Amino acid sequence: MSFGLGNLPYGVFSRPGEPRRVGVRVGDHVLDLAAALGGDVYAAPSLNPLLALGRTAWQETRARAREAAATGDHLVPLTEVTLHLPVEVADYVDFYASLEHASNLGRIFRPDDEPLKPNWRHLPVGYHGRAGTVVVSGTPIRRPCGQRPSFGPSQRLDIEAEVGFVVGVPTRPGERAGAFEDHVFGVALVNDWSARDIQAWEYVPLGPFLGKSFATSMSAWITPLDALEEARVEGRSQEPEPLPYLARQAPWGLDLTLRVDLNGETVSTPSFRDMYWTPDQMLAHMTVNGASLRTGDLFASGTVSSVGQPGSLIELTWNGADPVKLPGETRTFLEDGDTVTITAWTSHGISLGEVSGRILPAT
Amino acid sequence: MSFGLGNLPYGVFSRPGEPRRVGVRVGDHVLDLAAALGGDVYAAPSLNPLLALGRTAWQETRARAREAAATGDHLVPLTEVTLHLPVEVADYVDFYASLEHASNLGRIFRPDDEPLKPNWRHLPVGYHGRAGTVVVSGTPIRRPCGQRPSFGPSQRLDIEAEVGFVVGVPTRPGERAGAFEDHVFGVALVNDWSARDIQAWEYVPLGPFLGKSFATSMSAWITPLDALEEARVEGRSQEPEPLPYLARQAPWGLDLTLRVDLNGETVSTPSFRDMYWTPDQMLAHMTVNGASLRTGDLFASGTVSSVGQPGSLIELTWNGADPVKLPGETRTFLEDGDTVTITAWTSHGISLGEVSGRILPAT
Repeated sequence: MSFGLGNLPYGVFSRPGEPRRVGVRVGDHVLDLAAALGGDVYAAPSLNPLLALGRTAWQETRARAREAAATGDHLVPLTEVTLHLPVEVADYVDFYASLEHASNLGRIFRPDDEPLKPNWRHLPVGYHGRAGTVVVSGTPIRRPCGQRPSFGPSQRLDIEAEVGFVVGVPTRPGERAGAFEDHVFGVALVNDWSARDIQAWEYVPLGPFLGKSFATSMSAWITPLDALEEARVEGRSQEPEPLPYLARQAPWGLDLTLRVDLNGETVSTPSFRDMYWTPDQMLAHMTVNGASLRTGDLFASGTVSSVGQPGSLIELTWNGADPVKLPGETRTFLEDGDTVTITAWTSHGISLGEVSGRILPAT
Repeated sequence: MSFGLGNLPYGVFSRPGEPRRVGVRVGDHVLDLAAALGGDVYAAPSLNPLLALGRTAWQETRARAREAAATGDHLVPLTEVTLHLPVEVADYVDFYASLEHASNLGRIFRPDDEPLKPNWRHLPVGYHGRAGTVVVSGTPIRRPCGQRPSFGPSQRLDIEAEVGFVVGVPTRPGERAGAFEDHVFGVALVNDWSARDIQAWEYVPLGPFLGKSFATSMSAWITPLDALEEARVEGRSQEPEPLPYLARQAPWGLDLTLRVDLNGETVSTPSFRDMYWTPDQMLAHMTVNGASLRTGDLFASGTVSSVGQPGSLIELTWNGADPVKLPGETRTFLEDGDTVTITAWTSHGISLGEVSGRILPAT
C-alpha cells in the first residue's frame, strides 16, 4: 500500500463547515491528528507549529500517529475532506540542480556556447521565487499574460517537475545550518509552472520573475524524512570536488522516481537519483552567507531531468521542435484545459502525494 | 520640523519590558497609538493589521493621529523606546529602475556591449529577494562569506540606496492591481546590501542570490503616501512609450533627495526624481501576470542613482578604480566597522526615517 504505516505524510484538511487542522494520510483516509493526539499544534491551520518543534518532536508525533492509525479510529475518508496548502510558506527558493536539465537548457538557448555556465559545477545555482503564489495541488492555474515581448497570454506555458524540501527548524542571522535532518522536516512534490516566452524576454540580467511568479504548485502531503530513510542514496559524484562547506556529511540523494502525466498520459519518468547537487548541499549553500532560515521555508530542487526523461516540456519537445504525441493529438507547450499531474515513489514502496493542476484560459 | 504634523510616519516600538505596538513619529517622540486611539490594530506587533484595512481607514487613522499628536498626550521620547521591524514582510521584490544605475553597471561589467539589455526600456526589470532577512535600521550587518569564487569573506561589500514601497491591500490570484494608492500604504528607505564578488560569480543565469540574501535593511518608519502628496511629480519621459498596462495613470514620481553618509561623511545625494520607472509602473508590472499581492509585500526601486550622484559604491568608485576620499582615509568597498546611513527628504520639508547599519566582521 502506497500510503501505509511506513509512509504517513502530513497535510492540512477540513471537513465542510469546520476549521482547518493537521492530518496524516493513511491509505485513502486522513487521520485527524487533533482528535487522535490532542494538542493545539495539530489544531492549527498549517503544519508550521509542528514544523517549529524540531526533530525529536517530529519523531514522537510520527510514532504516536502510527499507533493511532493502527487503531482505525479518527480516520476520515479523503473523499469527505478538502486539502489545503500544508505550509505557510516563508521564503521560497528554487535551485537548478539537475545536470541534464541545466545542460539541455544551455544547449537550447545558447547553442554556440558551453551548455553550462562556469559557476554551475561549483555551487548549486538558485534564486528566490514568490512565496505568496505557492498553491496546493488541485488549484487551477490561470495562463499568465505578459511581455513575450509583444503583450498577450503566454504561448509557451511549461511545467517543471521538482522535489521540494520544507524547513522546520530556523537558524539565527549569521548562523550556518547544521545537519540537514535537524532543519528539514520533509519532502513535497512541486510543479514550478513556467511561461517560457515571458521568462526568455525578462530574465537578463536579474533572473526569472513574472515567467514564474504567477503560480507554483506543491503537493498537499509532506512526506517526513523518516519515511524516506530506506530511499537515501549516495549523491552522484562531483567533479571538481565541491568546497568544504558543500561536502556531503551523509547520503541525502533520494532513490525517487517521478512520473509526469499530461492529460493522463505519462510523458516522462525522471529520477531524483540523477540530480547533481543533493538537498543537503542546497541547504548548506543557502545559509553559508549567514542568511537565516525560517520555519516554513520551502526550497525546491529545480527541474528533475534524467537522460531521455526530462522534467519539462521545453526539454521533452526540444523547444517545441519535436512535439509530444498524445492520443489523437500532440503538444509542444500546454494548452488551456490541459491537466498535469506529477507523482513519485521510492523503490521501497513509499509514494509522495501528487501535485496536479489544470490550465485555465487567460483572462 | 522634519517630523512635524504633516509627516507622521508609522513604526513599531516597545518600551523596556513591554510588548511591541504601533506608534507614529512626532518630532523626537513616538505617539503611542494604542494608548491614544485604542483598538487592537494599534496594539499589534507589526503594521500589518493596519495595512490590511485599506485607504479609507489609513486616512481616518492619520487624521485621528494628527489630532492626538496635537494634544501632546501619549508621547514617548524616542530615547526611551526600541524601534522594531515595522512590517511583517510577505514577499520582497527588488527592481532595477534607475537608468543611470543600470547603465553604469552595464558599462562596468560589460564594457564592450550596449550598457542596457534589450528588455530594459520595455519593462521594469525586477527579481525576488529574501523576505526573511529584511531587518530594521540599526541592525548590525555581518559581512557574508561565500564563493568569490575562492571561498572567504566578501571583499567587495557594497550598499544600494533604494526607496521601498509597502503594500497594504492585497489582490486575488489572477487579478491585476488597481490604482497605486489603493494598494500601497507608504514608503520606506531601503539599503540592499550587496556582496559584489559573490554576486558576480553566482548570478548567471538565474540572478542574484547569496550576494544579496544575507541582509536588507529598511527604515523603522513608513511614511504614508498622504504625507508625500506635495512631493508627487510626473515621471521621467520614456522612450519607447511603454505598453498600455504600464501607462501612468497619475504622477507617482517623487521629488525626493536621498543622502548617503559613510562614517558620517556625505558621499552621494541621488534624486528619486531621476528614476526611469515609477513605482506605479512597478506595481502594474508585478501583477500583470496574475501574481497576487499580500499585505506586507515590500517592493523596492533598486539603486537610486543620478548623474554624478550614484547610490552604490561600485558606481561611486567605478568598480574600485577611483576610491572615495574620507577624512584621513579612502574607501573602495565597505570595511568592517563602517557605518552607512541613508536619509531622504522632499523639497516640502518631509523627511523619511533613516536606514542605517554598521558592518561587523565575518565570523
